[in-house]
Amino acid sequence: MQLRKSKIKFGRINNIFISHLHGDHVFGLFGLLSTFNLLGRKNPLHIYAHPDMENILVFFREHFAEDLFFKIELHPLVKREVKIIYEDRVVWVYAFPLKHRVPAFGFLFKEKFRPLNIRKDLVEKYQFSIKQIQAVKAGEDITNDSGDLLRNELLTEPPYYPRSFAYCSDTSYYEKNVEILRNIDLLYHEATFLDPDKDLAKLTGHSTALQAAKLAAKAGVRELIIGHFSNRYKQTSAFLREACAIFPATKIAEELKTYTIELRREKRISH
Amino acid sequence: MQLRKSKIKFGRINNIFISHLHGDHVFGLFGLLSTFNLLGRKNPLHIYAHPDMENILVFFREHFAEDLFFKIELHPLVKREVKIIYEDRVVWVYAFPLKHRVPAFGFLFKEKFRPLNIRKDLVEKYQFSIKQIQAVKAGEDITNDSGDLLRNELLTEPPYYPRSFAYCSDTSYYEKNVEILRNIDLLYHEATFLDPDKDLAKLTGHSTALQAAKLAAKAGVRELIIGHFSNRYKQTSAFLREACAIFPATKIAEELKTYTIELRREKRISH
Repeated sequence: MQLRKSKIKFGRINNIFISHLHGDHVFGLFGLLSTFNLLGRKNPLHIYAHPDMENILVFFREHFAEDLFFKIELHPLVKREVKIIYEDRVVWVYAFPLKHRVPAFGFLFKEKFRPLNIRKDLVEKYQFSIKQIQAVKAGEDITNDSGDLLRNELLTEPPYYPRSFAYCSDTSYYEKNVEILRNIDLLYHEATFLDPDKDLAKLTGHSTALQAAKLAAKAGVRELIIGHFSNRYKQTSAFLREACAIFPATKIAEELKTYTIELRREKRISH
Repeated sequence: MQLRKSKIKFGRINNIFISHLHGDHVFGLFGLLSTFNLLGRKNPLHIYAHPDMENILVFFREHFAEDLFFKIELHPLVKREVKIIYEDRVVWVYAFPLKHRVPAFGFLFKEKFRPLNIRKDLVEKYQFSIKQIQAVKAGEDITNDSGDLLRNELLTEPPYYPRSFAYCSDTSYYEKNVEILRNIDLLYHEATFLDPDKDLAKLTGHSTALQAAKLAAKAGVRELIIGHFSNRYKQTSAFLREACAIFPATKIAEELKTYTIELRREKRISH
């Protein structure tokens, strides 16, 4: 139901990354798979999850989807290691271990380098061929007909920084992940509890807002989104206050809201 | 999530009636049971469903709820018969067979007779004792100290009609159920398709809006609510039009809307 509201086209979902096999991170899958089937999906669906997901999928098929018209391919997350688990033309996805009551993984979505934008005024000025334009976009320098070396940096706009987003839920404060999260643009990190309940957080394998902020600060991420709040607290403002004291660029995760990582061009050092 | 929005207190839910074991009628249960557990539920929960629900509950417990702090009691719906499956101080619940691709049951919720309302002016006039008041509420006549017979009908307000509601989803048109649905106040009946797709309705074990209306008319119910519309149709107005042509007192089921059956007093024939 939430996915429908988000207006994301169901047919465009081909990969599902599941952090761990607790109900609040799994149950939505059943309805989604059934809906895919009802809508006549043919494309295979890739699920990245703990190997026990196999049993869950078998159960699902036996009881609720004897006629499943698309293939489900399970990619088991086994070892506690940082690993690239998915790659396509524009993005890498890394899995990395979290620290929870059951095996759990975070996911890092890292954009690949974008092709360089060639300066249109210079294309006109130098009358580049298609081949030359492709070379420039690929980062090469050009020697023109007069034998002048035209350096790539002068022919192109400064490149965009590839963007990066990581998702960490559910997990205790786990400082080891500072490494994988270093300098990313956006971190979603769970903040189930507030600092006065940090013992409860530890006991249940969750984090406080303070801990999420601390990890964001140590890793030097640009922005932090916190969520997964326990419903023992009536308002989310206390979470924001607690996190912002340490890491001001914190936002509250709001259901169905879209968070955009702006494209930024690198600054070039002039020569 | 929908139940939260409905403001119904989770602790007041002690009985869950499941028509059949298709995903769209079952998957919501997992999250609900997990939430009950998280909220510290202690009271047993009664589930009325096809006997295969046992396997589903076993799976749920093994994979998602090893620590379940309340008891789940399954009441299997086995035979294709009309049967009272639940009773308390105010209501009976009947199960009755539907006609679908898998075993499916409808449910009839039938209010018990309410105690009579004694006329307060007469309590004062005749100075009834507590015992006499109880007798009047139970429907008895009273002989007062002067030896006059005071007939119950004159001492009480006309009684309320007990209210009744039936839920029929998912099912083909199944005329046999006219009997159990006879003269009820409110019928919810599925209407997955429109009349031009009646062959598809038959094939998939569903009904058209026309068929739902026909059943409502034959049974002489007071009001009909239709729902479970296939998303092949863009608007619900066509369903309403089709049903109202045969049964004007039809409404469209709207998510989270409350439908109230008004209390009506019986009319007495004067003596």
